[in-house]
Amino acid sequence: MSVKIAKNSGFCFGVKRAIKLALAASQKYNNAVTLGPIIHNPQMVNKLQKNGIEYVNNLEEIKNRPTIIRSHGVTREVLNELQKMDIDIIDATCPYVSKTQVYAKELHERGYQVIIMGDKNHPEVIALRSYVDGGTIIAATPDELPAKKFLKAAIISQTTRNITDFQNMVSALVPRCGELLVVNTICNATSIRQKSTLKLAKESDLMIVVGGKNSSNTKMLAKICDKFIETYHIETEAEIDTNWFENKQKIGITAGASTPDWIILGVYNKILKCLGKEEQQVESVELIPGFKEE
Amino acid sequence: MSVKIAKNSGFCFGVKRAIKLALAASQKYNNAVTLGPIIHNPQMVNKLQKNGIEYVNNLEEIKNRPTIIRSHGVTREVLNELQKMDIDIIDATCPYVSKTQVYAKELHERGYQVIIMGDKNHPEVIALRSYVDGGTIIAATPDELPAKKFLKAAIISQTTRNITDFQNMVSALVPRCGELLVVNTICNATSIRQKSTLKLAKESDLMIVVGGKNSSNTKMLAKICDKFIETYHIETEAEIDTNWFENKQKIGITAGASTPDWIILGVYNKILKCLGKEEQQVESVELIPGFKEE
Repeated sequence: MSVKIAKNSGFCFGVKRAIKLALAASQKYNNAVTLGPIIHNPQMVNKLQKNGIEYVNNLEEIKNRPTIIRSHGVTREVLNELQKMDIDIIDATCPYVSKTQVYAKELHERGYQVIIMGDKNHPEVIALRSYVDGGTIIAATPDELPAKKFLKAAIISQTTRNITDFQNMVSALVPRCGELLVVNTICNATSIRQKSTLKLAKESDLMIVVGGKNSSNTKMLAKICDKFIETYHIETEAEIDTNWFENKQKIGITAGASTPDWIILGVYNKILKCLGKEEQQVESVELIPGFKEE
Repeated sequence: MSVKIAKNSGFCFGVKRAIKLALAASQKYNNAVTLGPIIHNPQMVNKLQKNGIEYVNNLEEIKNRPTIIRSHGVTREVLNELQKMDIDIIDATCPYVSKTQVYAKELHERGYQVIIMGDKNHPEVIALRSYVDGGTIIAATPDELPAKKFLKAAIISQTTRNITDFQNMVSALVPRCGELLVVNTICNATSIRQKSTLKLAKESDLMIVVGGKNSSNTKMLAKICDKFIETYHIETEAEIDTNWFENKQKIGITAGASTPDWIILGVYNKILKCLGKEEQQVESVELIPGFKEE
């Protein structure tokens, strides 16, 4: 009898990393702040607050406290201001986001008209555009592209966008560009999460999918599992019914992109309890004995 | 009452240029040859033969005669062999094709895996691939692409391909490439011919479309005209009926990509005759008085 959690369940690599860095900062300092909420998840923001990490909305509110840059990154101007302050900076910018910023700067320097596919009001895109001196074009869909031709254009994407949308954008640009450099900066966390979930579903007798009932990425995980095996989509451990596990040997768990680790762990431990097994006292899914080997 | 020929009717720029260079060579030499038929049009090949320009099938048949390189271009190896011979070389390679060759070479030197969209058996593609040292990938459709990922790939196209096919190919490559450089080497002769035809159709009372009844590009021109105005699709002047021109003030003519100038001129003069006007004794559409102004 086994209970396994799918690799890449829940938060993506960049968010997990940012939270680890923030929690490490809470050990080192007693007054660190994050510039903006670390992620758009109130439960996680509360958890950090309990660990002594407040969030501030702007540079003025920092007041010389150690400052954590969240996974979206910050504009070049904000980074400059932070560096002028006499404070420790903990840069939790997602490495994939940082890489996109490096690309944006370099492509502009190489003479390309930089085009960013993304939402112009999203913090990641606001930060990203600051790395290009001069006119960046930002468009979420081909309709938002300006009606002009480009001798040399380069397109990059907000990391969380969909590859199909990116393909459509590139396709719309091809006839308008003499030379078009396409740099695929889309992070495949979502597709990787789906693949890991599918792999586990194929090896399991039952799948438990954890995440908001309205979360579209969680519903997609449930749909993927449901094609292969009996599947339950739950929000928390409270919904678990012991009867589900009768005559089941291999239980699989997966979780949507906005499900914090402790909710996944709650579900994991509740299932162990239903099966009469010993609960795991760990803080992170990755710390469950045997997790790495799966 | 006016009779106008649409700009960009008939042969494309590259073919017209090659024929002009060949005819100029016939004036300068009495024994020039083309390496392969100048274009795949037997009437035009016959016309050149009447002007003393034979065609040879390979380097051995040249026998020290001045040699015309046709618009498709030749491989780097063939060019090297020609240069070793003690002969005059008339390079009629289409400038757009030459530019594609320069791109292929340069992209390979910049470390890109070069992908050519085209027909691997077409002379233009055979010549083009010779400019890349090492493995070029040639694919006519996305299905023909190898199932692999590329860190840095660049795609160019056989000049006569369709932009929609190119967009589809690029779209298929986007998810497989870290960096994809798209160089749009498609010559827009076809779309420009259609635009010029449409412009003239909108200004005319009647359109005469000249070209093979089975020629798909000619049929498309007829379809475009037919939406606006009374249109006749003919192959030669012999099909013209004087009655068509009754009460018509503005006659427009256009022609498909494989229609030689003298067939267009034959139609033009026949119409002038029907209208009781004086015929134009010129060799080329561009030499008709007033043509440039249209």
